Order: sequence, then structure tokens, then C-alpha cells
Amino acid sequence: MTRDEFFEAYAAVVAGVGLDIRPEQEVYVRIPIEASTFTPHFVREAYRRGARYVHVEYQDQQATRARLESAPAESLAYVPPGVFGERLRLARDGGASLAVLGEDPMGLAGIDSERRGPWTRALAEAGTALRELAMKDHFPWCVISMPNPVWAKRVYPDLPPDEALDRLFDSVGHACRLDADDPVAAWKEHSRRLMAFARWLTDEGFGEFRYRGPGTDLVVGMPAGQRWIATEGVSANGITFIANLPTDEVFSAPDRQRVEGRVRSTRPLILGGTNVGIAEFTVREGRIVEAECEGDRAVLEQELDLDDSARYFGEIALVSEEAPIAELGTVFYDGLYDENAGCHLAFGNAYANCVAGGGAMEEAERRAAGLNQSMQHTDFTIGSDELEIIARRRGGGTFPLMRRGRWTQESFDAAGV
Amino acid sequence: MTRDEFFEAYAAVVAGVGLDIRPEQEVYVRIPIEASTFTPHFVREAYRRGARYVHVEYQDQQATRARLESAPAESLAYVPPGVFGERLRLARDGGASLAVLGEDPMGLAGIDSERRGPWTRALAEAGTALRELAMKDHFPWCVISMPNPVWAKRVYPDLPPDEALDRLFDSVGHACRLDADDPVAAWKEHSRRLMAFARWLTDEGFGEFRYRGPGTDLVVGMPAGQRWIATEGVSANGITFIANLPTDEVFSAPDRQRVEGRVRSTRPLILGGTNVGIAEFTVREGRIVEAECEGDRAVLEQELDLDDSARYFGEIALVSEEAPIAELGTVFYDGLYDENAGCHLAFGNAYANCVAGGGAMEEAERRAAGLNQSMQHTDFTIGSDELEIIARRRGGGTFPLMRRGRWTQESFDAAGV
Repeated sequence: MTRDEFFEAYAAVVAGVGLDIRPEQEVYVRIPIEASTFTPHFVREAYRRGARYVHVEYQDQQATRARLESAPAESLAYVPPGVFGERLRLARDGGASLAVLGEDPMGLAGIDSERRGPWTRALAEAGTALRELAMKDHFPWCVISMPNPVWAKRVYPDLPPDEALDRLFDSVGHACRLDADDPVAAWKEHSRRLMAFARWLTDEGFGEFRYRGPGTDLVVGMPAGQRWIATEGVSANGITFIANLPTDEVFSAPDRQRVEGRVRSTRPLILGGTNVGIAEFTVREGRIVEAECEGDRAVLEQELDLDDSARYFGEIALVSEEAPIAELGTVFYDGLYDENAGCHLAFGNAYANCVAGGGAMEEAERRAAGLNQSMQHTDFTIGSDELEIIARRRGGGTFPLMRRGRWTQESFDAAGV
Repeated sequence: MTRDEFFEAYAAVVAGVGLDIRPEQEVYVRIPIEASTFTPHFVREAYRRGARYVHVEYQDQQATRARLESAPAESLAYVPPGVFGERLRLARDGGASLAVLGEDPMGLAGIDSERRGPWTRALAEAGTALRELAMKDHFPWCVISMPNPVWAKRVYPDLPPDEALDRLFDSVGHACRLDADDPVAAWKEHSRRLMAFARWLTDEGFGEFRYRGPGTDLVVGMPAGQRWIATEGVSANGITFIANLPTDEVFSAPDRQRVEGRVRSTRPLILGGTNVGIAEFTVREGRIVEAECEGDRAVLEQELDLDDSARYFGEIALVSEEAPIAELGTVFYDGLYDENAGCHLAFGNAYANCVAGGGAMEEAERRAAGLNQSMQHTDFTIGSDELEIIARRRGGGTFPLMRRGRWTQESFDAAGV
């Protein structure tokens, strides 16, 4: 596959299956400058599908770093009024939104956390309205990651730059099923299987899950009316979209006050450009009461203290170790890829649709339903060949959900996959 | 000079002399993705000077091209409401604005003019409020051009890419006086001389100028209260800025109805990414009644028909052939560089401050004062070693203003330079 073929296939999958762009729709793209070669391919595909306008907003991490290092301290919490303007307008109107990742995962490492904190918090606060619309699937949105030299160097530091980049293109192409004969058809089949697991888990409505693995012994209680979500969401304007490409997860949200025990990540956490390494959490009545990590703990603590609810869990996600990214065995230092490399949890906000009727609830109602509400949402992977998950039925009795990080035969049979 | 030294010196000149960025000021930067290596240097310098926030908006010409080629025809005139939002807010508040040029000068060549027209017109209309604020120096603004591989290839097509880029960096560094011992001081001295010419021409208030050269025999009548402008402007919030870096011109505006004769450009015209080559105009009572060019005449005609006043002249600018860019003898295919390579004119809008009190006038008053008012403003160079300009005094009698494209000794003496 040439680079151009890669970009064309990727653009077709993202515009077609990821966002299902419609005639006269407006489209918003945020993309790092390092990934700019993809932009015209995607823009062209969106317009071919009849888009009315494609907004392109480039992210420049080096400019952000210059600000964090050099701007007057009192200015760091300033967010200009128009920063979310067009994105928010499109989101309200049902426009399609593509976020491209691919900046240097460690590009903001070493920034003083005293300077970084006000910046992170102010941006999160200013983004509240947009985040809430996304969390309730009000508009079609999709997150992807784009290979580029900076990211490739982090993933394959021992390879020569060109080889590292080629390898990353191959990995991403494989994970995104671009190497299939018909990538769009492959996505539809993949989606069908994950949706079957989600339906089964929703119907079954397990009371809790017990996770066991090295450093992990955790019980996650589930709220009444739990709904499991996979691949497809449906926006308020009736468009079926896939919020993450790739995605290999089936997810829901825990009861925010019923998580208990210890859990250790199996991949490093990358927090706003800083690699804090493997992290370990102690959880009491849903709250992370202790957090340790290999790297700069101040960065981790800052994320956990973003607001009052950041230390509670908002997502529980099941990913088989047979998924393409898990098979690759590579650490990508990228939220999207590392989360799809195995089962994961997120501390912070829960997606509204994780309980029945959640999308129509006010914030207070969602909280009462057990869903955590926070400006934070950070995924971390806990899946591995050594992870076991036992589900407990509300009426009593257990079910072997996953073994060695994979769906058990019992799960396959029950889901009818 | 290493690349980093170049960028540092350029950032210091632009932030210091170009915009004179102040503490707590907001700054807006528009820059092509090809020139992104400059961004962090400038952003850092702006924050060091105490800027409150630096907005960075990247331009992607390939994405624009994809739109012009592939978007539904009826969508091409659509300009989303927020496109000028933040820039306009900053302009109204006296924020500093930097526009970086450097996209491929021929990057939009070959686009069907039927598709290009509605797009150009809609953008010009949507930008009216911003353009008016800039034309009356309401806020400090500055335009520069940044060397990059795409532009370098156009300027030096026969050199290997690396050499072409090195050469362009050298040319730009020389034209911008970055190679001076103290570039900021060099700019101040250069500015002092050009300002002296401007003061003299304003005081003298010549009635008309007669241009003679190959293909050119043109008389340009001047309005009452004419003011000549050079290098420095002063914004409504009292900041002295230099709108173009480099700049070697002293300019004013003609009486829109008193331009008569024929004029031929001495450098090619680049119109929105299309090179239409050398152009020749016949002018009657101020209006271009006939236009010819080496390249695609439809593109030129489209610009001339942008609105009812686009065929009238808005600028008359004097540049000596001793200016650094003229000396280089290179065609840069870049408005900023080619206009500072010699005397030029512009068809389209006149700057408000070209007549006394113009900045405070309403549009109708400016028009009554003789200033052309249009969405168009396109400069074209007419300077060369063969250009002669004779000024005529209102009371009668002539004055030899320029000979062989250079200020005469009589002009130097009269201006006291």
C-alpha cells in the first residue's frame, strides 16, 4: 500500500464509516501539523460526499510548549472567548467532528506542573459545553491517530526514522483494517460482532465484575439500567457513527460509589504529553484514595484533582487480547491505541448513554443514576494475558466473562457471536 | 547565520519593530503550514514581551485546493459565521495581527475560474469589517513572508531544493536587514529616511505624476489633502507599527477619477495563487477599460470585476531601484517582495489615511475625497531602470522625481535625506 493509497483508504473509512458525512453537513477537523499530509485527502472525501464546509484547525504542540514555558503566569488560565466557538456551533447543529491525534506523546514533558495546572483546568472548563454534547452523542464525532515521524520515533526508538515511520504506518493500517480487501465492509463486520457483545451485556445486566491480575484485585459495581456500548453511536440528528477508529472495546460505566480494591495499569499513562509510566491505584467506595506511578506523580495528582469527581471512575471497557493492537504487543504512547490494546478503565466522566435514558437526563439526574460527572476522562489499560474477569449476577451466582484477557467460550456462546 | 538565529532575529524584528507587542495584548498569527518552524520562535518572543494570548491559525493551501476542486458548486460561496470571529474581535480591541505569507505562489493554478470566483468574492465580502479596520490602521498589523521549500522551488527552479532554500533564506534575511549587526537599529534608521521622503511629498502636495517607461505612459492625478505614508503607522491605541516587513515604499492614493493612459507591469502578477504574468492596462478617467496579460486573462478579469470599483486605482507607491529587493533582481512571485522591488500601483481599495483626516471619515466621505473604495486591492510593480517620473506642481511647473527608477538628486535634496 503506497502512502497515497493509505490516506485514501483512511479518508474513505473515516468519512464513510466513522462519521458517515452527509450532503450539506459542516465538518470540523482538528489535526496536528505533523499529520498535515492527511488533511487534503480527508477534505476532498468530505466534499465529495457533499459536505457544505470543512473547517480545518491545526494544533501546534511546539507553540503550546512555547506558551507554557514563556507566557506570563497569570495569563496561562486565559481561554479566549472564541476558541471553542465554531466547534461548539457545529456540535449544536449536528456537524461532524474529527479529532486527529498524533502529536509527540512526550511533547510537553518537563513543563512545571504549577504552570501546567491552571492551563489544563481552564481549557477543561471552557470545553464543558462541547464535552457534554459529545458525551451524550449529540453530534457525530470520531477520533483517529495519524502516523507521523515524531510519533513513530517514540514508538520505535531503535529503528532508523524512515523504517520507524513505515512500521507505524503498517501498524496503524492493520489496526484500522485498511489492509482488508474492502476496509469499509471489514469495519461493518467487526462492528456487528462487538455490537452483539454489547447487546448481550446490556440484556444480562450483571451486578458487578471482579478483576484479578498482577497488582490488580478490584470489584466494579454496576448501576441499575446499565447499557453497554460498542462501536456505533447514533447522534441526535440520526447519524450512525463510530467514535473511535480503531475500536475494539465494549464499554459502559460503573456505579461511581461501588468500585473497591487495587488496580495496576499494564501500559504507561500519557497525561497531556507527559509519560508517567505504569500507575497503581487504591480505591475505596469508588474514590481513588492513593495513586502511585513510575514517573512524575505531581502530573498524575494534578489530573486526579482536576475537580471533585476526577478521582471516581467513569468507564469500564472490555477488549479481548485477540484485538489487532493487543496482538502487536507494541506500546503506542497514544490514548486511542493503548486503550484498544486491552481491557481498560477511565477515571473521570461517564458517557451519558451508559444508563438507559441517560442522554436525556440533566447532570444531577445522571449523577443520581450512578454516573460520575467530571471534566476529567482518562483511560488506562489494565488488560493482559494474565487478567481474569468474573461477573456476578444480581440474583447471585457467577459467570466467567474473560480469561487470560480474552472472552471465554461461555461469553461467545451467550453473546451468540 | 544558522536557521535558529534567523528565526530568532526575525521574531525579534517582527515582535519588536513590526508590531511592538505590549504586555497583556492579544496577538493573532496566520501562517501557512509550510512555514510552521517559525511559529514557536515568534510565539515565545510575543509571550516574553508579555502578550496575554497568541492565537495561531494555520493556512493549508492543499486543503483549499481540495475544496475548490471537489466541493459542491453551490457551497463555494459559503463562509461560516465564525471564520473571522476571533480575528475581528482582536482587531476591534487593538490586538496585534501578523500575517505570514509563503504558500506556493502557483498553488491554486488551474482552478476553474467559474468555481474560484464565488469563493474569492464571498471571502472578500465576509472580510469587509476586518479590512476596513486594517485600512484605517485601527490595530497594529504586519505582513511578512517566510522562506520554505515550496516557495524556494518557485523562486529558484534551477537549483537543487536545499540550495534553493538556503538561497531564499539569504535573500529574505538581506531584504529584512536581519544580516545587519543590530537588525532592530537598522530598521529604525531605514524607517527614518523613508519617513523623511513621505513628509516632504505630503508637504509638497504635487498635483500629478507622469510615468514613462517601456509600455507605460500614464498620468496619475492626486487628490487634495494627499498624505504620503512610509514604514510606520500608528494604531488607534497609540502603537507605532510597520505594516510590511520588508518595506521600501513611500505611498499614497491617487484621485480615483484622474488616472489616464497606459501602464505595463515589470513583474508578473500573482492573483490568489495563479501567475498571470506581465499585465498591461489601458486607463480612461481612472478606470481600467482594457486589460491584457501573458497568462489566464479570465483570472485577471475576475479580480477586476470583484466589485464596481475594482477597476479604479487605490495606491501609488514609490520604491527606488536601490532597495535591497530591487538589487537582487529576482522575481519572488510574492506580493510583498515583488512590490518592494520597485515603484508600483494597486487597483482596488485605497488606504483611508492617504488623505488628511481619512481615518475618521465614513466610506462615502472617503470616496468624495477621491479615495477609491473596493473589496479589491492588488499591487503590481511598474518600477525598472527605465522608469522616469515627472511630478507637476499644482501651480504649474515640473519636478524630476525619479530617473532610471531611482530618486533624483533633486528629490534627495528636497527631502533632506
